[in-house]
Amino acid sequence: MIIVLRPDATEEQINHIVDKVKKLGLNPYVSKGTERTIIGVIGPEDVLRVTPLEVFPGVEKVIPVLAPYKLVSREFKKENSVIDLGHGVKIGGKKVVVMAGPCAIESEGILRAIGLSVKKAGALVLRGGAFKPRTSPYSFQGLGEAGLKILKKVGAELGLVTVSEVMDTRDVEIVTNYVDVVQIGARNMQNFNLLKEVGLTKKPVVLKRGPAATVKELLMSAEYILSGGNFNVILCERGIRTFEDSTRNTLDISAVPVIKQLSHLPVIVDPSHAAGKWGLVGPLAKAGVAIGADGLLIEVHTSPEDALSDGAQSLIPSNFANLMYELKGLAKSVEREI
Amino acid sequence: MIIVLRPDATEEQINHIVDKVKKLGLNPYVSKGTERTIIGVIGPEDVLRVTPLEVFPGVEKVIPVLAPYKLVSREFKKENSVIDLGHGVKIGGKKVVVMAGPCAIESEGILRAIGLSVKKAGALVLRGGAFKPRTSPYSFQGLGEAGLKILKKVGAELGLVTVSEVMDTRDVEIVTNYVDVVQIGARNMQNFNLLKEVGLTKKPVVLKRGPAATVKELLMSAEYILSGGNFNVILCERGIRTFEDSTRNTLDISAVPVIKQLSHLPVIVDPSHAAGKWGLVGPLAKAGVAIGADGLLIEVHTSPEDALSDGAQSLIPSNFANLMYELKGLAKSVEREI
Amino acid sequence: MIIVLRPDATEEQINHIVDKVKKLGLNPYVSKGTERTIIGVIGPEDVLRVTPLEVFPGVEKVIPVLAPYKLVSREFKKENSVIDLGHGVKIGGKKVVVMAGPCAIESEGILRAIGLSVKKAGALVLRGGAFKPRTSPYSFQGLGEAGLKILKKVGAELGLVTVSEVMDTRDVEIVTNYVDVVQIGARNMQNFNLLKEVGLTKKPVVLKRGPAATVKELLMSAEYILSGGNFNVILCERGIRTFEDSTRNTLDISAVPVIKQLSHLPVIVDPSHAAGKWGLVGPLAKAGVAIGADGLLIEVHTSPEDALSDGAQSLIPSNFANLMYELKGLAKSVEREI
Amino acid sequence: MIIVLRPDATEEQINHIVDKVKKLGLNPYVSKGTERTIIGVIGPEDVLRVTPLEVFPGVEKVIPVLAPYKLVSREFKKENSVIDLGHGVKIGGKKVVVMAGPCAIESEGILRAIGLSVKKAGALVLRGGAFKPRTSPYSFQGLGEAGLKILKKVGAELGLVTVSEVMDTRDVEIVTNYVDVVQIGARNMQNFNLLKEVGLTKKPVVLKRGPAATVKELLMSAEYILSGGNFNVILCERGIRTFEDSTRNTLDISAVPVIKQLSHLPVIVDPSHAAGKWGLVGPLAKAGVAIGADGLLIEVHTSPEDALSDGAQSLIPSNFANLMYELKGLAKSVEREI
Repeated sequence: MIIVLRPDATEEQINHIVDKVKKLGLNPYVSKGTERTIIGVIGPEDVLRVTPLEVFPGVEKVIPVLAPYKLVSREFKKENSVIDLGHGVKIGGKKVVVMAGPCAIESEGILRAIGLSVKKAGALVLRGGAFKPRTSPYSFQGLGEAGLKILKKVGAELGLVTVSEVMDTRDVEIVTNYVDVVQIGARNMQNFNLLKEVGLTKKPVVLKRGPAATVKELLMSAEYILSGGNFNVILCERGIRTFEDSTRNTLDISAVPVIKQLSHLPVIVDPSHAAGKWGLVGPLAKAGVAIGADGLLIEVHTSPEDALSDGAQSLIPSNFANLMYELKGLAKSVEREI
Repeated sequence: MIIVLRPDATEEQINHIVDKVKKLGLNPYVSKGTERTIIGVIGPEDVLRVTPLEVFPGVEKVIPVLAPYKLVSREFKKENSVIDLGHGVKIGGKKVVVMAGPCAIESEGILRAIGLSVKKAGALVLRGGAFKPRTSPYSFQGLGEAGLKILKKVGAELGLVTVSEVMDTRDVEIVTNYVDVVQIGARNMQNFNLLKEVGLTKKPVVLKRGPAATVKELLMSAEYILSGGNFNVILCERGIRTFEDSTRNTLDISAVPVIKQLSHLPVIVDPSHAAGKWGLVGPLAKAGVAIGADGLLIEVHTSPEDALSDGAQSLIPSNFANLMYELKGLAKSVEREI
Repeated sequence: MIIVLRPDATEEQINHIVDKVKKLGLNPYVSKGTERTIIGVIGPEDVLRVTPLEVFPGVEKVIPVLAPYKLVSREFKKENSVIDLGHGVKIGGKKVVVMAGPCAIESEGILRAIGLSVKKAGALVLRGGAFKPRTSPYSFQGLGEAGLKILKKVGAELGLVTVSEVMDTRDVEIVTNYVDVVQIGARNMQNFNLLKEVGLTKKPVVLKRGPAATVKELLMSAEYILSGGNFNVILCERGIRTFEDSTRNTLDISAVPVIKQLSHLPVIVDPSHAAGKWGLVGPLAKAGVAIGADGLLIEVHTSPEDALSDGAQSLIPSNFANLMYELKGLAKSVEREI
Repeated sequence: MIIVLRPDATEEQINHIVDKVKKLGLNPYVSKGTERTIIGVIGPEDVLRVTPLEVFPGVEKVIPVLAPYKLVSREFKKENSVIDLGHGVKIGGKKVVVMAGPCAIESEGILRAIGLSVKKAGALVLRGGAFKPRTSPYSFQGLGEAGLKILKKVGAELGLVTVSEVMDTRDVEIVTNYVDVVQIGARNMQNFNLLKEVGLTKKPVVLKRGPAATVKELLMSAEYILSGGNFNVILCERGIRTFEDSTRNTLDISAVPVIKQLSHLPVIVDPSHAAGKWGLVGPLAKAGVAIGADGLLIEVHTSPEDALSDGAQSLIPSNFANLMYELKGLAKSVEREI
C-alpha cells in the first residue's frame, strides 16, 4: 500500500500515520520526494485495507498495490481450473461447453422439445429458469419447484447437465437438490448472503457479472464462494451497462482475456442477455469463442413469439443448429473444440 | 404501444401481427406512411408488454407508450405521499428529515455517543448497519442481531427513529422487530424476493437506487413493494456508476426532480455513499436540499480513523453540526425546514 | 413521429399541435386510447425533427420512428460498400484489411523498419501519426508535415497504402496530399467542420467512433461526410468509455454487427486503443475478425520501450507476425481472408 | 511514480528498469515486500510519464503519484482566480454570474427581446450561438459571422457581456473580434489545436466538459489554454454521458466541489444542456448555486416552440425571471450574491 501525503503534510501528521501502521504490525517506509512525501507499507495489505487511512490528517490518497482477492487469483493457482459438471462434462479445458435452453421453463413438453433440439445441435448443458428475477412484479415469475422437477426429469432423459438460477437464500437447498449447476444471476452478484450460501455447497456455480460490476468486483464475489469452501465457480460475462442503447447491454468481450490473466477460473459468455436481440446472438457467440471463452450460455426457444420471458433474444432451434455448426469450425481454428 | 414495421414488411406479416394483437383483446390501428407502416395499439399495454413482438417477422422495433409502473406513479396518486416514521417524524412534507449515524454499529458506547451528537445537531433518525454488505468476504460483516439490539436501545433512549439495512429474506422478520424503518441497500434493489418480503410488512422502507439502475427501474422495484401492500416507501438516490473516478459514485442529482415528476413517493439523498469522501458530503447535502430532496442520509462517526466500515466518508460530529446549521438556512431559502 | 400527450392534455392543446403539424405539410392522426391520446404523424420526419414539439403544452414525449441518417443507411443502399484504397487494396469485401504501424511517426528509419515487418506479416496498410492529439500539452505532439513526408516515402517504397490522422480543418489539404487514407480520430468524431472538410475531398476516410458516442451518432457523423459528396467512409470501433478500468476503453464488439445491420459502410476494429495494453490486442483482434469486421487497425513498434506515444499498447513485430498467422486461419473459418 | 513488479520479476528485469529510471535523471528506490517488489521513483514525474514503463518486462502496473496538470492546479495558485469579463463583470468571486440567452442567434429582433428579458431578470452575460455544432448535417447550422454581428450589437446596446462558441481554428480570430468571452463546446474539449489557438488570445474562455471526459481530463484541456499564455479560463460542468435516459446527460454536480479542490479556476454549471428539458433547469440551477458554482449558463427563448435549436430545454422569460428571484434568496443563504 502506498500512502501519498498532501504537499502541506506536517511532521506530526506523518508520525501519526507511521505509528498507526506500526501498531498494525506493518513496516512503513517514508520517502520524501521533491513535491510529495509518500509512505510505502511493506507487509500484508489486508490489515490496512480495513483502516480508513484516507481520513488521517495530511493524507491525499491511498493506493493499494495488491489485489484484494486471493483464492480466485492466478497467483494462488497457476493452472486453469477444470470443473466437473457431471455427466462427463468438464469446463475449463479444451472443450468449449455450450449451455442452451429457454429463459424460463414453461412446461415439460416445451422444455423437452427445446432440450432435444439443443442436444442434437451439440449443447451439453440444458438451461431453464424456474425462479425468474423480473423487473416488473406483474411479469411471469417462473414455475418455482415445479419447474425444477421438469428440468431434472428432462435433463435425466436426455443425458444433459442442468443449470438453473437461485435467487433466494431460502431456496438454495431446493435448487441444489434438483440441478447439476446453480446459477447466480447478474442482479444477485453482490447478494453476499446468497454467495455465502452456495459457497457452503459443492455444486458448480455459474456466477454472472453484474451490469455495473467491474471485473475485480466479479472476482471478489467469486472469492466469497471459494472462501466458503466451494471452488467450482464458473464466471460469466453477460454485458455491462453503458450509454449505448442499440443493445440491451454492452458485451465486455475484453473481460474474457482480462479474467484469464487474473484468475484460474473458467469464463463463459452469455450473448443472449448481452444483446437482447436474437439477430446479434450468433455474431457475439463467435466473438466469444474466438477470444477464448470456455463456454457459452444461449437462449433457445421453439416458439419465441409465445415465450413467457426473453422471447426477443431467443434463437429458434434451426438457427441455433446453424450457429453450432459454424462455431465448430471456428473453435477448431483457435485450437478448441465444441 | 407502437409497432414500427420494416420497410420490406409484407401484407401477410402485417396481418399476422394484427391477428395477434386482436387475440389479446386489443385494438390495432394500421397507418401506412411514406417510408414505414406502423401499428398503433389502443388498450392496456401490460398484456402486450409480455409478448415479444420484436420477434414477429416484419417488425423493426416496438415502442411502449405507457410507463410500466402503476401504484408508484403520480397518475395513480397526485399529491405527495407523507410517510409516518414514528416518534412524530413524518417524511414527504415540508420538513427535510435528516438520518445520520455510523455506517456500522460497532458497540453500544460508540453508537450512543454518535446518536447523542446527531440528535443535538438536529437529526431525527439514527442510522446504523447491523448486517453489512461488504465487497470482500474478509471485511467486517456487522454485528447482526446484537447490533440491532443496541440500535433499538439507543434509539429508544434518545427518542430517535431507527433505520437499518436488511439483506436477506430470512432476516426480514428479525430486522423489522427491532427497527422503525428498514433499508434495502443499493446492491439489493433488484433482489426481488427481498422486495416482496418487505412488501408484506407495513414498515417504512428506504429503497436505495442501484448503482446501475435507471430511475424507471428504481420505480419498478418500488412497485414490487407497493404491489405487496406496503405503500410506505422512501426512495434514495445515492449515486450511480459512471466513468468518473474522482468520486466513488456519481450523484445523479437530477433524479430528485425526475422522480418527483413521475412519482408521489418521498425521495432522499445519500451524499456519503455517492461521494465516498467526507470532504464532499457537505456540498452534496446542500445540493440535495436545494433541489428538493425530502431527506438526507449521512454517515457520522466520532472517530472515523477507527471506523470498521466507510470511515473515509464519515463526518465527525462537529463537522456534521456545522453542516446542519448551514442546511437550516438553506432549507428556509427554498421554503423547507430542517 | 409519434407524439404522446399527457393524460391531462386539453382539446385546445391537441388542436394547437394538430395545426402546427398541418402547417408543416404533414398529416396528423389522432388516436384516443384509454389512458393517453397519441398523435401519429405521417410524412417525412425531418421537417418535424427540428421543431421542439416537446415544449408544446400537453405533450408528454415525442418518439421518432425513422432514423435521422439517410445516405449511410442500408435502406439507401442495400449491398455492402466496397472502398478502393489504392495500391489494389479494397475494403468491404471478402478480404479483411489489416492496417498496422506505429502510433506516431518518429523517424524514417524506425518507420521503414516497422513498415517492412508489418508488410512481411501481411498488413496492407501502413498507419503512422504525424499530427497527434495528446491529452497533455507537454507530450510529444507529432512531427507534422515532416512526418507525412516520411510516411509517403516509406509507403511508396514498400507498396503499402498509407493512413494518417488529420486533426485540424487547416491541415486537410496538406494531409490529403501525402496520404492515401485520412483518419478522423475519436476525439474529433463530432468536429463537424472537420467532417465537412473531408467530405469535400474524395479521399477514403477512417472515421473513429468517439468514446462517448452511440452507434447512431457515429452514423450521423458519417452522414456529414457522405452528404458532402464523399462516400468513401470506413467506420472504426475503438472502444467506448465505461466504468470498467481494467482496459483503457471497453471495446463494444457488438457495434460491428449492429452497424452492419444499419449501414452499408465497412467497419473496422482497433484493438490497440480499446485495450490500451498489448497483451489484450491479440484476443480482441480475433474477436473482431470472428464477428465480421472488415479490417483491423493495430499498433506495432519495433521498440515499444522507446516509443514516443502509446508504447504500452504496441505489439512488437514478432508478436504481430504470430497474430497475423493465427488470424489467417480464423478468417478462413468465417469465410473471410487475410 | 510507483512501479509495481510482477511476483515473478527477475533481478535482471528489476535492474533493467532501475537503469532506465537513472538514465532519465531520476532516483529509483527498490522495496522488496512479501508479495511484490515495488520501485518508487523520486523526482519530476513528467519525464517518466512519457516512457511506457508498462511494457518493460517484469512490470505489473505503473501508478502515478502526481497530477499531470500544473498551471491549473491549486498547488500552483492557492487563491481562487477571479476573471474579468469586461463591462465590470468578474467571475470567481462572491458574485454568481448568470449567463443566459438563446441556443442559437436567429435574428436581431429575437435576440434583442431575449436580451432585454434576461438583463431585466439579472443576467450579466448574453449567450447566443452563431456557429452551431449540430449532430445532423441537415439541421440549422447557425448564422455564422452575421450572427456574431447581431450579438455584438445587442450586447453593446444592453450593456451585457457576450459569449459565443468557436468550433474551428479558422474562426478563432473572427469570433474573438466580436465577443467578450469565447466558448469551447463539449464536443471540442479535446480539439487540442482549437485549445492552443484560444490559448494564444487573451480572451476569457468558457471551456465545457466533454460528455465522456473525467474532471482530470477537463483540467488537462484547460492546461493547454493556460500553457499557451491565457489564464482566463472558466470551467463548465454540463453533464456527462451515462446509462440514465430520463435526462439528456447526467449533471455531475460533484464536479463543482471536486474542481474547487483541485484547481483555482472558476466553475460554472449549465443546467440546460445537462437536463435537455426545461422543467428540470430550475432545480438543477438551484443545486448548482447551493454547491458553490461561480456561475450558470441557461438557455432562454421568447418562443421555444419556434426555436431553431434546443427549444425543448429553453426557459421562457417569465420562468427565467421567477428562477432568478428564487436563486437570489438561495445564493444569499450560502453567502453568495446573484
